[in-house]
Amino acid sequence: MSDTDLPVIALTTGEPAGIGPELAVMMAGEAPPQARVVAVGDPALLEERAHAIGRSVTVRTLSPGEAPPPPRAGVLPVWPVSLRAPCQAGTLDTRNAAYVLDTLAMAVDACQAGEAAGMVTAPLHKGVIIEAGHADFRGHTEYLRDACGVDEVVMMLATEHALHTASPSWHGSTALRVALATTHLPLREVSDAVTGPRLTRILRILDAELRHRFGILSPRILVCGLNPHAGEGGHLGREELDVIIPTLEALRDEGLTLDGPLPADTLFTPHHLARADAVLAMYHDQGLPVLKYAGFGRAANITLGLPLVRTSVDHGTALDLAGRGEADPGSLSAAVTQAIGMVRRGELA
Amino acid sequence: MSDTDLPVIALTTGEPAGIGPELAVMMAGEAPPQARVVAVGDPALLEERAHAIGRSVTVRTLSPGEAPPPPRAGVLPVWPVSLRAPCQAGTLDTRNAAYVLDTLAMAVDACQAGEAAGMVTAPLHKGVIIEAGHADFRGHTEYLRDACGVDEVVMMLATEHALHTASPSWHGSTALRVALATTHLPLREVSDAVTGPRLTRILRILDAELRHRFGILSPRILVCGLNPHAGEGGHLGREELDVIIPTLEALRDEGLTLDGPLPADTLFTPHHLARADAVLAMYHDQGLPVLKYAGFGRAANITLGLPLVRTSVDHGTALDLAGRGEADPGSLSAAVTQAIGMVRRGELA
Repeated sequence: MSDTDLPVIALTTGEPAGIGPELAVMMAGEAPPQARVVAVGDPALLEERAHAIGRSVTVRTLSPGEAPPPPRAGVLPVWPVSLRAPCQAGTLDTRNAAYVLDTLAMAVDACQAGEAAGMVTAPLHKGVIIEAGHADFRGHTEYLRDACGVDEVVMMLATEHALHTASPSWHGSTALRVALATTHLPLREVSDAVTGPRLTRILRILDAELRHRFGILSPRILVCGLNPHAGEGGHLGREELDVIIPTLEALRDEGLTLDGPLPADTLFTPHHLARADAVLAMYHDQGLPVLKYAGFGRAANITLGLPLVRTSVDHGTALDLAGRGEADPGSLSAAVTQAIGMVRRGELA
Repeated sequence: MSDTDLPVIALTTGEPAGIGPELAVMMAGEAPPQARVVAVGDPALLEERAHAIGRSVTVRTLSPGEAPPPPRAGVLPVWPVSLRAPCQAGTLDTRNAAYVLDTLAMAVDACQAGEAAGMVTAPLHKGVIIEAGHADFRGHTEYLRDACGVDEVVMMLATEHALHTASPSWHGSTALRVALATTHLPLREVSDAVTGPRLTRILRILDAELRHRFGILSPRILVCGLNPHAGEGGHLGREELDVIIPTLEALRDEGLTLDGPLPADTLFTPHHLARADAVLAMYHDQGLPVLKYAGFGRAANITLGLPLVRTSVDHGTALDLAGRGEADPGSLSAAVTQAIGMVRRGELA
């Protein structure tokens, strides 16, 4: 594969007051990945942030959609989007919410037009977008679902887990992948949101994407219960008996390989994890604390079920760190690596 | 300290059809800990289970409350309680629910009479106790709260976390301790159960016990939000704004050192954990998956706020493993070690 055949990955630089712009700069300063990464954002902002953190990176402004050159350390190609208002690191401004949304729209368009093979997103700030008048804005994942016109997507985080795999008794996968049945909901709304139809859609997508984008011939998925101890036979909640167990049974009849519902606190142990390709958690804080503990700053957030490849960092805008060059690019690097792998395996399929 | 001065720890052997009896046998076969551990259960059952798993351990039946001899590998002293019905490993029998409760009552009595300095519990099976007619039975922790006549106790799990502390940038505690604001509740009941008065009681107990039983002069406690992203400023739930933040403020005025509410998925990362003595999770599956992932079979469950020292294994009865000698005594060993430390530090205080 020659350098100009390397897949193009569009990197949206996210909230301009956060650490997204400098993470893009840091990534451009390193040895280039096996892809042509093109930032989507304001070129002047990126230059300014490179200067602020003392990185000598050349920002190379392309035309929107223009094919980026082969990757070169120290060069950051950019598809330009203009800030709506001046931006100071660490200080949110509702006027730039539209800018952030514009960068997303440009990346989606590029993927749909075939100008990019996939997209990676730096963090945005939901609060400021909501305050700018987008009251229903729930986050990247939900935005992309709507922008691509699909009914359901699945949020999955992935990392390598070092702790248990260092054990001599470990013979399983070193990848830890945690998908969520519900995402950004107040906790009190979770139980009613875990319905049979939703679990069915989510698990079908998860199974299909593990095959198509991760090259797993026959994925084994571990499914958490909703309640503590997976409801303990109905003593701690009935959703397992009434909803989850019958849904999993029906999906097994379709050919999916599903273990569960399992108590979440015993599922994340070697006995179970060593034979799992992915875990489905029922809600955000059931699955992500352990994933991020294991990932130690090197986890990627992946959206499954879209007609395009999309990965993301696993962290927020870190306004308090912005402009200081102290942010850790580990998660962005993991997100780019995951996106490249998904693009490649999709091409093979 | 001579051997007969070593503290007495009463070990209730739990559900007779589960792995509790054989864990007690395994522990007796090892080098003795710095305590006189006395099992509470049916001596004939313990002998039978020792035989079943091929361990040569001498079961030495004492009178109830009789001072156990100095610890010796291969000898298991027992305060006797008789089974109500014959027991086969792996097969529950509601008739033995009363037996299990009797072992707990004997251990509590021994602690209150000064015959034991603390108690460690092997797993019981909640379902069979409920089915035997104790409809309100919620578990060991709640039973002990009521038996000791206190209003509130705190469930805390503790382990050593190996992964991050192996990093050269780690300078904090190697202990990971996670306490819960709510325990065994269906998920849909959690949000309403997280009230200001409850958080106040729980955090006061946690702070006091970290000082008294763990020898920490000025404990720093990290507090999780209830909702994902700790509610994200009210966009993902209002309990942080309405309940948690004002409660923490008031407790800081009392002198507690509290960080939070923090998003649970970013709290369990080195940046936060390295400076924490304990974490308060709002509910079971927010805190325990990561604790048990980190603990890797070597976590102990600790009840705080009782007038006695009580620790426990962190796992269930494992009926499918019972009688086969394949159960892992790592958690029981951790529980005994924690109990000994808590007894010692309580004596110093």
